[in-house]
Amino acid sequence: MSAVKSQKKQVRLNGADRLDEICKVAARMICEKGYDGTSMSEIASAVGITKAGIYHHIEGKRELLFAIMSYGMDSLHREVIVPARAISDPESRLRTIITNHARLITSNSGPQGNNPVTILVDETAGLMPAHRRKVNQRKRSYVDMIRQTLTELKDQGKLRDVDITAASFSLLGMIIWLSRWYNPRGRLTPDQVAQDITRIALGGLLRC
Amino acid sequence: MSAVKSQKKQVRLNGADRLDEICKVAARMICEKGYDGTSMSEIASAVGITKAGIYHHIEGKRELLFAIMSYGMDSLHREVIVPARAISDPESRLRTIITNHARLITSNSGPQGNNPVTILVDETAGLMPAHRRKVNQRKRSYVDMIRQTLTELKDQGKLRDVDITAASFSLLGMIIWLSRWYNPRGRLTPDQVAQDITRIALGGLLRC
Repeated sequence: MSAVKSQKKQVRLNGADRLDEICKVAARMICEKGYDGTSMSEIASAVGITKAGIYHHIEGKRELLFAIMSYGMDSLHREVIVPARAISDPESRLRTIITNHARLITSNSGPQGNNPVTILVDETAGLMPAHRRKVNQRKRSYVDMIRQTLTELKDQGKLRDVDITAASFSLLGMIIWLSRWYNPRGRLTPDQVAQDITRIALGGLLRC
Repeated sequence: MSAVKSQKKQVRLNGADRLDEICKVAARMICEKGYDGTSMSEIASAVGITKAGIYHHIEGKRELLFAIMSYGMDSLHREVIVPARAISDPESRLRTIITNHARLITSNSGPQGNNPVTILVDETAGLMPAHRRKVNQRKRSYVDMIRQTLTELKDQGKLRDVDITAASFSLLGMIIWLSRWYNPRGRLTPDQVAQDITRIALGGLLRC
């Protein structure tokens, strides 16, 4: 690789890292002070860049909200969806979904003891319609993977006698709620919590 | 009862009903358009009263947010906490907590297929500090009842080998998430969903 190419790649990587950093910091600030109560200048200052600098990475505040959600959905794709899709046995796949999604939330908890990115992914009302459709479509695709996994378990006679939709969203609620209560400075390690949630969820969904 | 007394009581009841109505309508509007995007005049107009009329019931917008959360916590107290406290057996008490809380959420779902009051009870950041403390204290007292119930089940050897905190919040997440996904115009009746969530939660928390 030529020096120029290598340098270009370096710049691009730094740009992506910086955007991730902006998304994380902005998510925390928006969760604390609300979307309307957080300005682009304040976010720039918290990240340690100029206001012009932040507009180099992000067009505007509404685009920032979409960037935060895309960042969250990208992480979910990489850490949960891709590894789960590689598993053919539905019980092992379900276990991977629960454990990896729980770990993703707990390991990225903010200093306030919650996960602002996960919380904001649920606040699609502030998005522009095209962006909202995109985020909702990605969420739906994740729910579909869970529904498909539970349907396979039902066909194997392993699922409790419960509705697939109720089961899928009960599972998601249990996991996503971690973003509201888990305190990284508390007694429970991310691994312990992921293990307990996996135990409770599998116990709740599968027949004894 | 004298005619005057009876009339006074009538007026008071209507006032309380009107306040409940204001809270429900305002919660729906705030969930749709955001706190900053919703004005007191718009809420008054949606309820069918004048702007002066709404200020007769509620001092201002921040007080309204507190009134909505108090309305939500009052319903929880009446429908879930009081009946559960009357039950001495922890397993029956847990069953009542899950079923009644799930029914409270599904039976008050808005036309958009969610429960705005439940969603807003989680948004305490916009409250004045004294109000936030009050709401958080009421939430804590509910969590304490759940923790206490699970501790009794643990002492009886009935609880799975999971941490009480992780178990309590997994349960709460499963139930509260109903406010985000349950669609009252969909296939599942409130009773079916309450039954399935109870089955999944008890299966997840209790040993086989």
